[in-house]
Amino acid sequence: MLTLALIQTRPRFLDVAANWHSAAALIERTEADVFVLPELFLSGYTFSTADQAASAALTQDSHVFDAIRELSAARGIAVCGGYAESANNTLYNSAFLIADGRLLANYRKTHLFYRETQFFAPGDSGFLTVEYRGARFGIMICFDWIFPESARTLALMGAQVILHPSNLVLPYCQQAMYARSVENRVFIATVNRVGRETNSLGDDLTFTGRSQVVSPNGEYLLRLNETEETVRTVAVDPAVADDKQLNIFNTILADRRPQMYHPSMRR
Amino acid sequence: MLTLALIQTRPRFLDVAANWHSAAALIERTEADVFVLPELFLSGYTFSTADQAASAALTQDSHVFDAIRELSAARGIAVCGGYAESANNTLYNSAFLIADGRLLANYRKTHLFYRETQFFAPGDSGFLTVEYRGARFGIMICFDWIFPESARTLALMGAQVILHPSNLVLPYCQQAMYARSVENRVFIATVNRVGRETNSLGDDLTFTGRSQVVSPNGEYLLRLNETEETVRTVAVDPAVADDKQLNIFNTILADRRPQMYHPSMRR
Repeated sequence: MLTLALIQTRPRFLDVAANWHSAAALIERTEADVFVLPELFLSGYTFSTADQAASAALTQDSHVFDAIRELSAARGIAVCGGYAESANNTLYNSAFLIADGRLLANYRKTHLFYRETQFFAPGDSGFLTVEYRGARFGIMICFDWIFPESARTLALMGAQVILHPSNLVLPYCQQAMYARSVENRVFIATVNRVGRETNSLGDDLTFTGRSQVVSPNGEYLLRLNETEETVRTVAVDPAVADDKQLNIFNTILADRRPQMYHPSMRR
Repeated sequence: MLTLALIQTRPRFLDVAANWHSAAALIERTEADVFVLPELFLSGYTFSTADQAASAALTQDSHVFDAIRELSAARGIAVCGGYAESANNTLYNSAFLIADGRLLANYRKTHLFYRETQFFAPGDSGFLTVEYRGARFGIMICFDWIFPESARTLALMGAQVILHPSNLVLPYCQQAMYARSVENRVFIATVNRVGRETNSLGDDLTFTGRSQVVSPNGEYLLRLNETEETVRTVAVDPAVADDKQLNIFNTILADRRPQMYHPSMRR
């Protein structure tokens, strides 16, 4: 069994140090193996310009990552969360998975939402899975959810638990993750932020909270509320996701028939 | 606008003539453009042997299809429903779409569920879409729903309205169609049967009814109950499904990035 901690935060816009400080305080008071934070939890979300996004962007050398590595090593935990990444003069909407003092994965968001397309480059890392404490984790970020190809790709790569840092403003995702879990028989931890942000472009965004964990059978194992900055934990057995057998005749991934699908999803 | 009629039936096992008679009576008293019936509504579902399935199987020449063609021509309507198809000494779990006196489509179920794998061959027709009254329809059958590739394939082929004859016994589908509709921005008419059947193999199946239509925005436009043999109609504007634009920066199908997906769904 592994304990997942969902940290639902209300970031202070552009204040990376303060945002890490708040998140660290929640991590420090919580017993868990894997801590999941929202998309862009270190910077906030609602940028007005690419320069503003760049001003809150981090490189792998940034000081805050020293702190996250140190905390993860000291506690023997994994931490996954989103940040604006600067690399090769390009900005990405990324998520790190840092465990036991080192970076295990850095995923760059594949499907950019709304005005992110103006501030970030489409992710070039591809979907990736990593092993930690005997479990295989996959990462997707927020809007990746609406493309069934995202979770499907991670499931086909062996992910048992999908970590899903988010900044959701639409009402769709939390309800739709039910389908994502049953169609792939995986755990999905969607961690959303709360609060409201505006920018000089007229965007006025209220983030919908309701962070959640769904099981491979579509059970909602944990559901947070819409407004609270808080941390909640749930124990899961990742091996449950290895059982793709729906009944004695049907096995979820093996029963796919790619030759019958549209050429864009065949093989 | 097109009016869809969902005909939720309780088939008499193996009694093709009686089942068509009941369905025709419901069609006759209803004003609609497209009538959708459950999977295997002409035969019933819970076969004990392949021979028993074969005993209720139909060819394209079967008499009941004359009656369906005649009714569709006389009324100027389309009728879609499921049947056990016999062709080339093979049985398929199929669905016809007959309109204005002729067969527009014959789809053979791609993903067989449970014991169907013992009685039917996996469908070889592939997913297909057809035009009727200026709207593009796609067909999938029951368990096809759990594979997101099914509805995705139909949406990529241009389907505006997915007709989904079903014999659902699990509680998953009706809730998950919410995701299928929003991820593809299509209408989906899931038409399920009601009642209970047993067979000599120990299967005891209760069909869950709750036939429904979901809109491209995930609204449930129509929901039937769990037990009633009945017909209900809803008017839809298929052109709404052509608007794949979620916001000024995102367009649902165009934003896919197949090169980032698993090789089995790439291109």
